[in-house]
Amino acid sequence: MSSHSEESIDLTASSSKRSRRGSPGRATWLDQWFARKLLSYIGDPPIALVLWDNTAITPENSRTEYHVLFHDRAALWLMLPNATLKFGDCYSNGRVEVQEDLVDFLETVYRHMITVRRPYLVQLFLTLKQRFTHNTIPMARRNIHHHYDIGNAFYTKWLDREMQYTCAYFPDPAITLEQAQIAKMHHVCRKLRLQPGQTVVEAGCGWGGLARFMAREYGVNVKAYNISKEQVAWARERAREEGLQDKVEYVEDDFRTITGEFDVFVSVGMLEHVGINNYRELGKVIDGCLKENGMGLIHSIGRNHPAYLDPWIESRIFPGARPPSIGQMAAIFEPYNFSILDIENLRQHYAKTLEHWLSRFEDHVDEIRQDFDDNFVRAWRLYLAGSKSSFTVGTLQLFQVVFTRPRNNALPWSRSHLYTDHS
Amino acid sequence: MSSHSEESIDLTASSSKRSRRGSPGRATWLDQWFARKLLSYIGDPPIALVLWDNTAITPENSRTEYHVLFHDRAALWLMLPNATLKFGDCYSNGRVEVQEDLVDFLETVYRHMITVRRPYLVQLFLTLKQRFTHNTIPMARRNIHHHYDIGNAFYTKWLDREMQYTCAYFPDPAITLEQAQIAKMHHVCRKLRLQPGQTVVEAGCGWGGLARFMAREYGVNVKAYNISKEQVAWARERAREEGLQDKVEYVEDDFRTITGEFDVFVSVGMLEHVGINNYRELGKVIDGCLKENGMGLIHSIGRNHPAYLDPWIESRIFPGARPPSIGQMAAIFEPYNFSILDIENLRQHYAKTLEHWLSRFEDHVDEIRQDFDDNFVRAWRLYLAGSKSSFTVGTLQLFQVVFTRPRNNALPWSRSHLYTDHS
Repeated sequence: MSSHSEESIDLTASSSKRSRRGSPGRATWLDQWFARKLLSYIGDPPIALVLWDNTAITPENSRTEYHVLFHDRAALWLMLPNATLKFGDCYSNGRVEVQEDLVDFLETVYRHMITVRRPYLVQLFLTLKQRFTHNTIPMARRNIHHHYDIGNAFYTKWLDREMQYTCAYFPDPAITLEQAQIAKMHHVCRKLRLQPGQTVVEAGCGWGGLARFMAREYGVNVKAYNISKEQVAWARERAREEGLQDKVEYVEDDFRTITGEFDVFVSVGMLEHVGINNYRELGKVIDGCLKENGMGLIHSIGRNHPAYLDPWIESRIFPGARPPSIGQMAAIFEPYNFSILDIENLRQHYAKTLEHWLSRFEDHVDEIRQDFDDNFVRAWRLYLAGSKSSFTVGTLQLFQVVFTRPRNNALPWSRSHLYTDHS
Repeated sequence: MSSHSEESIDLTASSSKRSRRGSPGRATWLDQWFARKLLSYIGDPPIALVLWDNTAITPENSRTEYHVLFHDRAALWLMLPNATLKFGDCYSNGRVEVQEDLVDFLETVYRHMITVRRPYLVQLFLTLKQRFTHNTIPMARRNIHHHYDIGNAFYTKWLDREMQYTCAYFPDPAITLEQAQIAKMHHVCRKLRLQPGQTVVEAGCGWGGLARFMAREYGVNVKAYNISKEQVAWARERAREEGLQDKVEYVEDDFRTITGEFDVFVSVGMLEHVGINNYRELGKVIDGCLKENGMGLIHSIGRNHPAYLDPWIESRIFPGARPPSIGQMAAIFEPYNFSILDIENLRQHYAKTLEHWLSRFEDHVDEIRQDFDDNFVRAWRLYLAGSKSSFTVGTLQLFQVVFTRPRNNALPWSRSHLYTDHS
């Protein structure tokens, strides 16, 4: 405890908010003790926790670069059972504020938290919770509805024209988001070496942009699955507009219902929602639908090692989401003797993608406020900023895994075809 | 049993060998029954098992493309406890012969064996054996001595000039082995993005070719470990000849004794000998010696799923060897929070490398016979041919895994630098 200092600072800019929950009185020694504990818990980053009476708790021997304002006593003590979850909630409803740039602040916190070891019992609890969490088809529907069916209009405000809500690919970090999403789709198609006339099944197609792109640019026939009603309706409409309705079929159903035989299996940004315990089932679905020399690609957020997703993101933004480590992903491929051909980690590309999304989100925040309340806006800001920070500091990864059947010898001798200028 | 037929055929070419173990008499119904069982065990490939009295056991409904000659009854019954192991032994000592091309024959057998499921108890035994096999440092020394210290002169007859006894890289399958081994070393160095003046530690350096290449072509300082006395002596001599003794230090010791801090960790073709149960220890060694933004590369034979190595190769050629699946390799990286950046599967490149090695081996077989007996020559022929076949049919893989520390953001935005023409 002696490693922390306290100071009283003037926060004129925020003083108007200080009184809105009535006067909780001065911070007691217990409040201050808990605030210090909280700083220790997150690894003593250069952050001042500024309490409702402007008492600032700071780590000793560390420059203070950021100020987190707790506007009432209850907001502070809500951190007790689960600081990460409750920080998100209190940030969203405005009871906690960050004075400085949110992305920079979160990167600093995450960098410090990496070095903190959780107590054994906490880890055990998280492991057991994970062990007994299964995404059944009805659960998957509810979870996906929660995130994706809040209105297509909202997503059109900050996604690219093709509504790619997955990591873009920036071979040059200076290109635009529109260019980078097209580059991503080309990168995926080249990895799969799509040929005109091939049949492709896509598991989790979002607003269907990749399916239309593959049909239009590579001449393949695509059957694309998604359990989000709103996304599928939007995707079908766009395909009709583009005259692609004969090349692309959107199926509003779970990937577990895939039937038929295909030259290619592709899934971009669905695996995060599948749940580790369903990987063997996913492998079985792929094994059941991929032709003898078929190629597959799975694009997913991942981890360096098995770990729980940020509890706030997992509870409030993406229910049931769980990014896997490479070791965990092996459960998809190994039981069915698939050969992994290529894994690429695009972590920095997702940080860059999120930078664009956050910037576009802020550019349209006034329009967004016409449809949603301030809590929603703050929650989404925190989610986008927190995700960018996680990819920047390396607590999240982005893996593209290319695989095939073991006997497929019709393979190129190098990956140079991915880097040839096709323009 | 009714699914097999028998015929008596004339094998004039081999008849001279038929009598050399005395006359075992005619094949009994029991001999023939067991031969049929053996064919079933390996999945009924189009092969005739020709017994010592020229009785040929063939699978019914299948064209016979290959003839395996058992020159005496004991050779047949030796297959009973462990057909794969004993086939290798009997092939080596000439009691079993294959009439047709050995590589083609083995590919056919392996393709059929992939579809055969082993009984549960056999799998359990293999799993338990693996579970309790640890490569301690003294064991590792014995195992490596067994394979690598049979005389450098032997290896110079069929390896390339730089004595690379690992998978080469054929961006164009028509290039020579010499070119492909140089291409492999460039590929490894480019993946690691070596910069002049960097320090590199190499675990398992063979005859030291990669260490000298990195020092000469990329201007780095290399400390290279190997427990094979003969290889280290040869590597030091060659480094002196090339004036590289100040840039490359060869250490005759186990990788577990690595100390110091390095910009780069590299290991090409050692992991196969480490043993799955020692992966965490290998990860710890890397974690202990890699600088904050350090890069690492591990190049290893691998599998699509956890599996035992061919028992004959494992017992007679590479004691203690165990190629891992990607899921098993995760045990090196995940406990230490390493980020996997890139995995490339070079399976077909190893088939091509082995094709070159086998061809060079046959070109020099008369010289080799001056130093070694026929059993040795046949054993090496079987080992090289069997390995080529395994990579061709996809029962073995070759993985190059690039990794780094989680916070390293000094990463290129694409892998295109691997495919730029540097000449």
